[in-house]
Amino acid sequence: MSERLLTLTTDFGEGSSYVAAMKGVLLSINPRLRIVDLSHRIPPQDLRQAALFLAETLPYYPAGSIHVIVVDPGVGTHRALLHVEITGSHLLAPDNGCWTLACSRLGSRPCVRRLTEPSWWRDPVSATFHGRDILAPVAARLSLGHPPEELGPLVESWRSWSPPEPTITAEKITGEVLIADPFGNLITNISATLLEKKIFQDAAISMENRLIPTRVRTYGDADPGTLIALLSSSGFLEIARVQGNAAAYLGLGVGARVEVVGRSKK
Amino acid sequence: MSERLLTLTTDFGEGSSYVAAMKGVLLSINPRLRIVDLSHRIPPQDLRQAALFLAETLPYYPAGSIHVIVVDPGVGTHRALLHVEITGSHLLAPDNGCWTLACSRLGSRPCVRRLTEPSWWRDPVSATFHGRDILAPVAARLSLGHPPEELGPLVESWRSWSPPEPTITAEKITGEVLIADPFGNLITNISATLLEKKIFQDAAISMENRLIPTRVRTYGDADPGTLIALLSSSGFLEIARVQGNAAAYLGLGVGARVEVVGRSKK
Amino acid sequence: MSERLLTLTTDFGEGSSYVAAMKGVLLSINPRLRIVDLSHRIPPQDLRQAALFLAETLPYYPAGSIHVIVVDPGVGTHRALLHVEITGSHLLAPDNGCWTLACSRLGSRPCVRRLTEPSWWRDPVSATFHGRDILAPVAARLSLGHPPEELGPLVESWRSWSPPEPTITAEKITGEVLIADPFGNLITNISATLLEKKIFQDAAISMENRLIPTRVRTYGDADPGTLIALLSSSGFLEIARVQGNAAAYLGLGVGARVEVVGRSKK
Repeated sequence: MSERLLTLTTDFGEGSSYVAAMKGVLLSINPRLRIVDLSHRIPPQDLRQAALFLAETLPYYPAGSIHVIVVDPGVGTHRALLHVEITGSHLLAPDNGCWTLACSRLGSRPCVRRLTEPSWWRDPVSATFHGRDILAPVAARLSLGHPPEELGPLVESWRSWSPPEPTITAEKITGEVLIADPFGNLITNISATLLEKKIFQDAAISMENRLIPTRVRTYGDADPGTLIALLSSSGFLEIARVQGNAAAYLGLGVGARVEVVGRSKK
Repeated sequence: MSERLLTLTTDFGEGSSYVAAMKGVLLSINPRLRIVDLSHRIPPQDLRQAALFLAETLPYYPAGSIHVIVVDPGVGTHRALLHVEITGSHLLAPDNGCWTLACSRLGSRPCVRRLTEPSWWRDPVSATFHGRDILAPVAARLSLGHPPEELGPLVESWRSWSPPEPTITAEKITGEVLIADPFGNLITNISATLLEKKIFQDAAISMENRLIPTRVRTYGDADPGTLIALLSSSGFLEIARVQGNAAAYLGLGVGARVEVVGRSKK
Repeated sequence: MSERLLTLTTDFGEGSSYVAAMKGVLLSINPRLRIVDLSHRIPPQDLRQAALFLAETLPYYPAGSIHVIVVDPGVGTHRALLHVEITGSHLLAPDNGCWTLACSRLGSRPCVRRLTEPSWWRDPVSATFHGRDILAPVAARLSLGHPPEELGPLVESWRSWSPPEPTITAEKITGEVLIADPFGNLITNISATLLEKKIFQDAAISMENRLIPTRVRTYGDADPGTLIALLSSSGFLEIARVQGNAAAYLGLGVGARVEVVGRSKK
């Protein structure tokens, strides 16, 4: 039990003293925790990127993991901190919507509590660093087997976020870029499922009115420098540049418009 | 014993081969070490930032931890390498002052030895990488229970560094920015204790002559874009910009002057 | 057995969701793995920098380690994925030459298999992320003691890469910069052994025709700002700037020409 897997996702930046302090608090309570850094490079206070990152990663972790999420522009205000139990895993996060997309991919209806019981927290609690003062000690104590029922009362509603859906007409799907990955690949909100359902003849894919001429299965299927459209490893339409950086080359990023145009097949 | 917690703090940069080599040396001697990366982003050879970082983080770690610190502009010269034992924890660091501020927060007078016993080291020792060749093997052997008495002789003096103190007059506290954090928050050397002791009427806070109009308890207490003054999570006066980056916005960073002006209360 | 050491080297970037997903896959199969991040900052798809990084770091790791390497511009094409066993350690990498220099430093002839057995993989396998879908599950199952013989057939040839060799005449060694480290130190392909064998009188070291006037043993042996030549911690000629960044100062990096000129001693 005490060797539990605990992951950290924050917007604190690599090598930040805030991350180091949180790990110290965690390991002081449970020195046998297995801490895994998921990311400390969520853009500062960017709840959407946090939500997308968690949805892309948490489903790969085993049941029983404890996931601590600190992207928290509302720290110290009246926003709640939550404990979420779902399919045997635990999430600890602010009530700002950053965790709900991941949760919907992890399983069915979660069991959500509001953290109200200060005996689980550090004392005193600062006004600006609840990751260190509330979430870390709660997570470490959970890892030791303390019962979550004592954390606080069940709640029935919380803030939620899900990505914008593409708009679909008879001849066009209009979506947008959700993620620009470290290679400069641009991953959209148009799913493989949607593309398969809505098969166009002579479909043309464009980004902000620039045609992406080549559709391939993987990066190595076209010459270096070619702009390509393919399916991302998580099953969405992706625009990339072979052995290059599509985001930099096109000057486009999160939010850029993508269109798939054609005539519906009968 | 062999599962000891060992932390690393360096200026080697994330993903550097120097960090990877050190971890290999550590794990070759003690494969069961629990290594925690505190930071590899101390600015190159910046002893002041190293000292402040360690003071902000080491106090959160449990007694018995081994802290290895490699910020070492004098590598290979006559500067000593030290083993410091304090309140049951061990520090291994160059004698350049980077560890003394943290030490003063960890406890009372430390027990300090100079590393002089080559049988604990790698052979040969390079002239430019004592982190790999001396500090890592010494730390790994300590983690296995080897007695620190054999490392070398006790020393009674060493280089020390502490941050500049604010200057205080009847009507003004003048301090400076010590840390610019990854959010662009500017943390000063003016402590909460000092602010409480020296209560001014109508106190005005300014940074390099720019007034910071709003005093709040936490970031969410003012509108986005507002410049605010608050207490940092470690208890110092901090200047921030709500949902923004104060350092970038003001064009200010470490060393910027901060003034708190008012009439003393009676 | 199950607490095996497993290292990760990728070009995914720090804090990337791709790294986090791979760790989830690894830990879902073997929750007791000891994962060590070597680097996620190999420049995107840069096989040469990957090869040099691995050669600088893998030799420090204990026998029995499992090294997973994902720098893979050919993902999804016909390029093979390989399992390499050498001196008791395991490497998992694409057949693109990135691992062979490290391998030659680890020991004698490796035992190499092509991964062809899908029962070890995730199902389905994406076209663009074999690190997550093939290498991670294979590595995790190896760590549990599954026999490598079942991974696929032995192969006798593979792609190989080794760095360019210096050219040597009676009066000159001409080499080049292989690595620019995070301090801006420039590490060349001219080894200490070669320098010792080829001793010149009045040898002059220059970089792209700029004389490097000072030869020292370590950084602290000259005044701040001095351009110096010394031996790197891995035994190669290195150009540095005392308490500065030689790469930025000289505007030079990987590939820059270095000359050692003199008259041969008799």
